[in-house]
Amino acid sequence: MELLSSTKSFGGWLKRYKHESVAVKGEMTFAIYLPPQAETQSVPVLYWLSGLTCTDENFTQKAGAFRKAAELGLAIVCPDTSPRGTEYPGEHESYDFGSGAGFYVNATVAPYSNTYHMYDYVVQELPNFVESNFPVTDKRSISGHSMGGHGALICALKNPGVYQSVSAFSPIVNPTQCPWGEKAFTGYLGEDRAVWKEWDATCLVESNADKGSERLPLLIDQGEADNFLVEQLKPEALEAVCEKVGHPLTLRRQPGYDHSYFFIASFIDEHLAFHAKALS
Amino acid sequence: MELLSSTKSFGGWLKRYKHESVAVKGEMTFAIYLPPQAETQSVPVLYWLSGLTCTDENFTQKAGAFRKAAELGLAIVCPDTSPRGTEYPGEHESYDFGSGAGFYVNATVAPYSNTYHMYDYVVQELPNFVESNFPVTDKRSISGHSMGGHGALICALKNPGVYQSVSAFSPIVNPTQCPWGEKAFTGYLGEDRAVWKEWDATCLVESNADKGSERLPLLIDQGEADNFLVEQLKPEALEAVCEKVGHPLTLRRQPGYDHSYFFIASFIDEHLAFHAKALS
Repeated sequence: MELLSSTKSFGGWLKRYKHESVAVKGEMTFAIYLPPQAETQSVPVLYWLSGLTCTDENFTQKAGAFRKAAELGLAIVCPDTSPRGTEYPGEHESYDFGSGAGFYVNATVAPYSNTYHMYDYVVQELPNFVESNFPVTDKRSISGHSMGGHGALICALKNPGVYQSVSAFSPIVNPTQCPWGEKAFTGYLGEDRAVWKEWDATCLVESNADKGSERLPLLIDQGEADNFLVEQLKPEALEAVCEKVGHPLTLRRQPGYDHSYFFIASFIDEHLAFHAKALS
Repeated sequence: MELLSSTKSFGGWLKRYKHESVAVKGEMTFAIYLPPQAETQSVPVLYWLSGLTCTDENFTQKAGAFRKAAELGLAIVCPDTSPRGTEYPGEHESYDFGSGAGFYVNATVAPYSNTYHMYDYVVQELPNFVESNFPVTDKRSISGHSMGGHGALICALKNPGVYQSVSAFSPIVNPTQCPWGEKAFTGYLGEDRAVWKEWDATCLVESNADKGSERLPLLIDQGEADNFLVEQLKPEALEAVCEKVGHPLTLRRQPGYDHSYFFIASFIDEHLAFHAKALS
């Protein structure tokens, strides 16, 4: 583990690290915000998954989350959005596939199947690493934005009992049915659409209901002026299946807000309070 | 005036504009945050001057200021840090001179004397433009960071009665006595160091005292882990002259904080409250 930077913020510390990941077979960068309380006690952790084109830095620089995290005594861990350092054909050509666009799945199509195991990294390796190396408890919650909102939802829905709470901003709730998801899932998972359903929040809510799994309440904020709302995000699909199977969902449509971090910043305090309550 | 973008944030609106400036003889970009209160009444304005390499976007994206501004009913206007669009020899080669580094002076050395009139732009043209085009009062306060902290201090000290309050983060308080200031003032103002004193906050506090000018209290936050503290920022110079002439100064040395926007974000709420009180 190599410390890249350490910056004081709201009495706590934002630290960036590089470490060797087994899951993605290479070096990964992540950031952790440790609130002031972490100097004297273990604190619970919120994992934040970012969207297309992002690194660990977008959230830390633009979300304005550390004031409230310091108040609540909440650590926040921000992984990168894909493995880095490989040079697969076309890997760096699109903003919505390859580097910066791992979609939080375990790829099964070569060459991505070699290293693009962001799901394993985010759900298992990174939390285990964080809990072994920092003053944090084993209480985990998860949230994210856009592609990362999709990631947060599937991580929670696929792992009942592992997360105390889940929320998302502008998530891709039904990636099997939108261009971003279809492109990514074809490239990472192949042509068999039946397999895709295991990585789609809307499908998982339905299959979890069939299995009688725990029904973790979902908190989602969605801007009504979001340019991607109609073609890519489609919250009404998730809303319909939640209503059908009785899965608790709070979907807040926020008038006038777009897809940017200015939207996230406007409501992040409420999400942090929601997670802190579940983690306490 | 051309609207570049309009983004909802904390119930208010962040708007970016381009307009033709007489002072700098060219197009300038600026941002204005209008809090929710501006929909029904005129609100006072805080001008924020950014530091070296910045544009209007650094503060708007990284300072986390709009939550408190929305609560206080304060508009915030962020100009760019230099004229743009010219191609003077060497203008774009250094991070600390030329584009992105206007130092908020009126240049007198050719070719910069042709367009680098950031002082006139920030003190006169931009406020007049803002007050003519937006739902704001004529109450003005000013703040800034690093080079912009220098800018805020000299704008207030050179214009008694014009600003209700002034504050700064990590300001260059004594540019006539540090490498950044010496380079910029030589390039913009020439070799005569006597002239430089009119653009140096520490010198202005002393000369204002001789003239019996209004003594606007100065609020300054300075990180003690700031890499530029010893060589460039030197708050002790301003502290000494304020003590000598009895100019009110609150200089807060903040242990562990660096020169970044993570530092600014940690204390911006207190600065906004300080300005809102003076503006009310």
